[in-house]
Amino acid sequence: MDPYMIQMSSKGNLPSILDVHVNVGGRSSVPGKMKGRKARWSVRPSDMAKKTFNPIRAIVDNMKVKPNPNKTMISLSIGDPTVFGNLPTDPEVTQAMKDALDSGKYNGYAPSIGFLSSREEIASYYHCPEAPLEAKDVILTSGCSQAIDLCLAVLANPGQNILVPRPGFSLYKTLAESMGIEPEKSWEIDLKQLEYLIDEKTACLIVNNPSNPCGSVFSKRHLQKILAVAARQCVPILADEIYGDMVFSDCKYEPLATLSTDVPILSCGGLAKRWLVPGWRLGWILIHDRRDIFGNEIRDGLVKLSQRILGPCTIVQGALKSILCRTPGEFYHNTLSFLKSNADLCYGALAAIPGLRPVRPSGAMYLMCFEYPNFIRVVITVPEVMMLEACSRIQEFCEQHYHCAEGSQEECDK
Amino acid sequence: MDPYMIQMSSKGNLPSILDVHVNVGGRSSVPGKMKGRKARWSVRPSDMAKKTFNPIRAIVDNMKVKPNPNKTMISLSIGDPTVFGNLPTDPEVTQAMKDALDSGKYNGYAPSIGFLSSREEIASYYHCPEAPLEAKDVILTSGCSQAIDLCLAVLANPGQNILVPRPGFSLYKTLAESMGIEPEKSWEIDLKQLEYLIDEKTACLIVNNPSNPCGSVFSKRHLQKILAVAARQCVPILADEIYGDMVFSDCKYEPLATLSTDVPILSCGGLAKRWLVPGWRLGWILIHDRRDIFGNEIRDGLVKLSQRILGPCTIVQGALKSILCRTPGEFYHNTLSFLKSNADLCYGALAAIPGLRPVRPSGAMYLMCFEYPNFIRVVITVPEVMMLEACSRIQEFCEQHYHCAEGSQEECDK
Ligand SMILES: Cc1ncc(COP(=O)(O)O)c(C=O)c1O
Ligand SMILES: Cc1ncc(COP(=O)(O)O)c(C=O)c1O
Repeated sequence: MDPYMIQMSSKGNLPSILDVHVNVGGRSSVPGKMKGRKARWSVRPSDMAKKTFNPIRAIVDNMKVKPNPNKTMISLSIGDPTVFGNLPTDPEVTQAMKDALDSGKYNGYAPSIGFLSSREEIASYYHCPEAPLEAKDVILTSGCSQAIDLCLAVLANPGQNILVPRPGFSLYKTLAESMGIEPEKSWEIDLKQLEYLIDEKTACLIVNNPSNPCGSVFSKRHLQKILAVAARQCVPILADEIYGDMVFSDCKYEPLATLSTDVPILSCGGLAKRWLVPGWRLGWILIHDRRDIFGNEIRDGLVKLSQRILGPCTIVQGALKSILCRTPGEFYHNTLSFLKSNADLCYGALAAIPGLRPVRPSGAMYLMCFEYPNFIRVVITVPEVMMLEACSRIQEFCEQHYHCAEGSQEECDK
Repeated sequence: MDPYMIQMSSKGNLPSILDVHVNVGGRSSVPGKMKGRKARWSVRPSDMAKKTFNPIRAIVDNMKVKPNPNKTMISLSIGDPTVFGNLPTDPEVTQAMKDALDSGKYNGYAPSIGFLSSREEIASYYHCPEAPLEAKDVILTSGCSQAIDLCLAVLANPGQNILVPRPGFSLYKTLAESMGIEPEKSWEIDLKQLEYLIDEKTACLIVNNPSNPCGSVFSKRHLQKILAVAARQCVPILADEIYGDMVFSDCKYEPLATLSTDVPILSCGGLAKRWLVPGWRLGWILIHDRRDIFGNEIRDGLVKLSQRILGPCTIVQGALKSILCRTPGEFYHNTLSFLKSNADLCYGALAAIPGLRPVRPSGAMYLMCFEYPNFIRVVITVPEVMMLEACSRIQEFCEQHYHCAEGSQEECDK
């Protein structure tokens, strides 16, 4: 029995049957005259479609630069660690998918927030005494992108604003603008400025740690200060922790929720980066709300929003347990030592180039350079030889184009 | 180089470096005073979250009926053919996924509208001379649900309306309401009424064929008449063809786009039903626009909207070619003859029950009964014995509760 049918028909009269076509007497009766006919075709995209703008895609897809025919292209632009084949996922991860397929148990619809068993796996994997988690605190999504989408959609109304890090991941802006939320208020790790930017219309604050594009890993003290601002200003936090645990050995990653008992936090993550399978589109939201500030309303809101498209691929959900439990520690370790060594290589090479000021990353998979005259982001997942070749091409370019004295960088690269 | 960074920084001054934390002089300078501090916590869900309401989920999740302890539950409520294990997908479909996994080629990000090769496969599979398709006309989505979501989002602004079939699939209403579109105008295969309901604010007309919940398959003539209304009124059509090709032998399925050269049509489909893998979340939009009425604007709008969450799982995309080409004809045939035989069984059993008036389905996987006193939908994918047992339970129930004379059905089931 489909309850919807009852709801609908209860508004109308009893239906009568006409062959297989059903003609239910509805609210509007058939009239004599016509109205509102359009004179000619005119189908225009909605305002939302027009407002949705992904700047990376817009530039990458419209790139007009002709590649140098004598050099193979080395793409340092997209945060996809799988592009060059040097960072395959672990065989256990692939095997987990095959097992899920063979079981035949994961072909049907899951609940829109994910299978209970899969949500339990995520909860117990990320649970810790300082930030406890149960299945009810976990929502599975179609990538971390949809996790961010749902969090913004549940927290902010059109006309409100969110505070996004700058430089920061462009999706925050893309999603917010498409929803009529203002993401214009960018904050830059200057806590006084952050606190100043918050106003009565601020729906949430985004913290991305470890960060894209800077590769920075925030210290415990710094995170505590951000939390103190959020607590003082009563603003919830969307923690984008997709690079969680991806930090180099000399640094420690602190999940934001472990440092606060009062600020409500939606932590977004996923399989994309740490398990090196961004195409599989499995992400999650972890709801940390020990003071019950989000309460059932925000939880229900997330559930309702998830029912629009019904969650991520069930095969990946079915594989989650094995992915989390069987991936060997060595795999994570190897990825990180590769990234660390490439980061050092790249940092060393770029630091020697006149005009560039690289920032040494402590995690994630990017390296930022400033002052040329804006900034550039380098993806450091490429194989070592290509990393070196790319750096030497950047060097060649800079040596040709950088002729300015310090202090007049705006004149560069005419 | 990440273009976004350039865009963002070009608004500010040159950045200065402060350890790994970046402090960019932005638009807003740090002030002396604080403003807008909230006095206490109050985090409420957005209007969109509140407006998003999936009636099936709301009832199923809040069902308070205690199951009879002496009878095992037979669920006839959810359109998931995999629930009882009697309708597994074809082994070729599972193998295609394993091959995609083993190739290692499908772990990275795809373009947000899907891999070009996968879109080519869909285009050539659904291409026909009367409704030609190329890869550029195909957008892959996270299930048919997201296909419908994107189509509505690109075509309609808040305040506009869409015409949905009634009785009809509840997601149309759920999605439209969450976007502030009015789905209240339900049409019921009565073409005069349909034409009357269209007004200057009508963004599109939804045609679901074969249909959920009626299991009806529209004749060519009927579809041509619907197209004629759309053409006269200049209203585009969203054709939900997720049950395309799932028709019983005595009927023919006509893809809507094959019957018109002028009405612009977005046809939505997916793997869920025909290939019996609803959990895998692979759907598509086929853009039929031979008169160039949608034009690039609607196409671009769809592409931009797809960039919010970046498309369906790449492993399923990678498996598409084999799924489409290698699934044996026998598989489709067996599914349909099972459905047909169950439909006949169910129809026969329910037609004999006083007070029920079943409609014999011609396709899809549902059977509708009217007049008791509203209507009920029965999912006919359950194993034969359970189908019969369910019908006899319905009979028992009706015999107990149906004491009314014809014409006073409102009195039933007190
Ligand atoms: C900071 C950050 N958040 C979220 C995402 C999106 O992750 P997903 O691919 O799981 O949607 C990315 C991807 O690059 C990212 O860099
Ligand atoms: C008519 C109709 N359209 C769309 C869908 C959604 O399909 P998907 O599971 O691919 O999102 C369904 C699912 O039951 C349906 O019945």
